[in-house]
Formats: sequence, structure tokens, C-alpha cells
Amino acid sequence: MDTTSGSTSRMDTTHADRRGPFWDVLAGRAAPPPAAQLLGWELVHVDPAQGAIEVAFQAGEQFLNPAGVVQGGFLAAMLDDTLGPALVATLREDQFAPTLDLHVQFLRPARPGRLTGRGRVVKRGKEICFLSGELHSADDTLLAVATATARVQTIR
Amino acid sequence: MDTTSGSTSRMDTTHADRRGPFWDVLAGRAAPPPAAQLLGWELVHVDPAQGAIEVAFQAGEQFLNPAGVVQGGFLAAMLDDTLGPALVATLREDQFAPTLDLHVQFLRPARPGRLTGRGRVVKRGKEICFLSGELHSADDTLLAVATATARVQTIR
Repeated sequence: MDTTSGSTSRMDTTHADRRGPFWDVLAGRAAPPPAAQLLGWELVHVDPAQGAIEVAFQAGEQFLNPAGVVQGGFLAAMLDDTLGPALVATLREDQFAPTLDLHVQFLRPARPGRLTGRGRVVKRGKEICFLSGELHSADDTLLAVATATARVQTIR
Repeated sequence: MDTTSGSTSRMDTTHADRRGPFWDVLAGRAAPPPAAQLLGWELVHVDPAQGAIEVAFQAGEQFLNPAGVVQGGFLAAMLDDTLGPALVATLREDQFAPTLDLHVQFLRPARPGRLTGRGRVVKRGKEICFLSGELHSADDTLLAVATATARVQTIR
């Protein structure tokens, strides 16, 4: 994990002057979006220069399937909220980047508790960006991997 | 949509004697799993002989992303809870079928409200099954499409 200048955790203020939906939430100028709140989303570390992010989620009992493990779709939601922010953290204030597609492989069942997502921008095109990432359990077991494609758009 | 005998909606009792997690929920013998409750899952129609299902979801405000539309991951969760049940409805009581992988393409933004999922078993192998499906808005606009792979397992 890169901890040189340019990287940001909740504790430092390197990017305190940056604006946009992602940075406004981090700086407390805006509430986290409802989907992020529902997933217990929390920033652990972000490095916009590298297009890399680490986030945490709280997998609650409300995400369980009939087998008593987290329904795969909610792991997909967490991975979407890992890969997306890895890219969003690199955008200008007047840009956003909807996900075009998302592919998730479910390697192991996930129990309720804290899960960690690590995401990165694999290739940053002018418009089309390729993303990848993983979801780990609290004991760092690899639970699921994902790739996604997103398209950078300028607002107005 | 096949409406001949063998198909089941919430209103009829053709399969009232069937057992297993899926049928127990439909017959009121078991509570819907938490993940299904959170998504507002509701059966519209199921045809186990055809491996086809139609379900509905309630996309609430709690699923919204910073752009004010449903976060793609929650559409993925809904599609997982469409494709999975299409297969689960065909299983014996002592079987279940975890999803191995899920691929979702997000065609259009989804607003909060009632969404409809249609899923089917494309190929039913002895163990490995290929699934596909779509998510539509209340006015039947196609919002997202998905494919998934699942593995049928026997309990104990």
C-alpha cells in the first residue's frame, strides 16, 4: 500500500481542497450517498495518482440469503462501490463515470461482518476506463473478484 | 409467458405440496430471506418446468448513488435474486445452487420504484447451470441484462 504523499486516508488532509461528490463526502461537506450508507461504506485509503482505493463495508444480517451467507448480489454491490470510487477519486469536479458493466466471481461464501474492498483503475482512457478489484473478509480471505467498465462523462 | 399448467403465481396452489427454501417461502412456511426482504422481492410468476421466473422488486431511496439513480450494484443484487430463484425453483428440497459468477450490463439508469426481473435457466447441467435475465422499469423499459453461472449442490 502506497503511503507516500498523494495518498489519502480519512485522517489526512492532503486533498482537502479538492471538490466533487467523492471529496465533498470525505471532507464532510456532503452526506454519503444512500447506497454507500446502506453498505456501511467507509474509506480506508485512496491514492488518486495511482487510481487505487481501499474501502470497508459492514455486511449486516439484512444481506443474508437462505443459506445464511451474504447474498452474492450484495457482494457485487460492494465491489461496484469499490471499483467505482477508485475511478471517481481521479475525476474532475464536473465529471462522473457510470458503470457500463460489472463481472463478479464469487470465490468463497461471505459471513456477516466487516469486509474490505480494494479497487484500481487498470486503464484510464479518455472516455472508457477498465477497473478491477477484490473483496476480502476481516481475516483477509479473498471472497470475490470483479472487473468493470465505466465511461467518464462531463456534466452539462 | 407460459401460463399453462405447471406454472405458478402467488395466487394458485399447483405446487403447494413442494418443499424446500423457495417453496416454503411461497407457501408462508418460512419468512423470506433478509436479502430478498431488503430488495422488496415478490414473486409474480414461476414456471419450474420451463425454468422461468418473473419477480418484482421495490427500488427504494436507500439504493441511490450520488447521481440520484439506483446504484448499479443493487441492480446486480436484484438480478442475482432473479436468476438464482429461476434455478432454485427447479431444485429438489435437499439441493441448493450458489452463484459462481454474475455479469451485468447496465443499459439505462434506474429510478426508484417497482422493477421487474425476468430470469431463466438457459442450460441445466447435472451440476453447472447457465442462467440469464433482464430487469425492467415499471413502464417496461429494459434497464439491465445479466448472465450467471451456478452450481447445483446436494446438502449433506
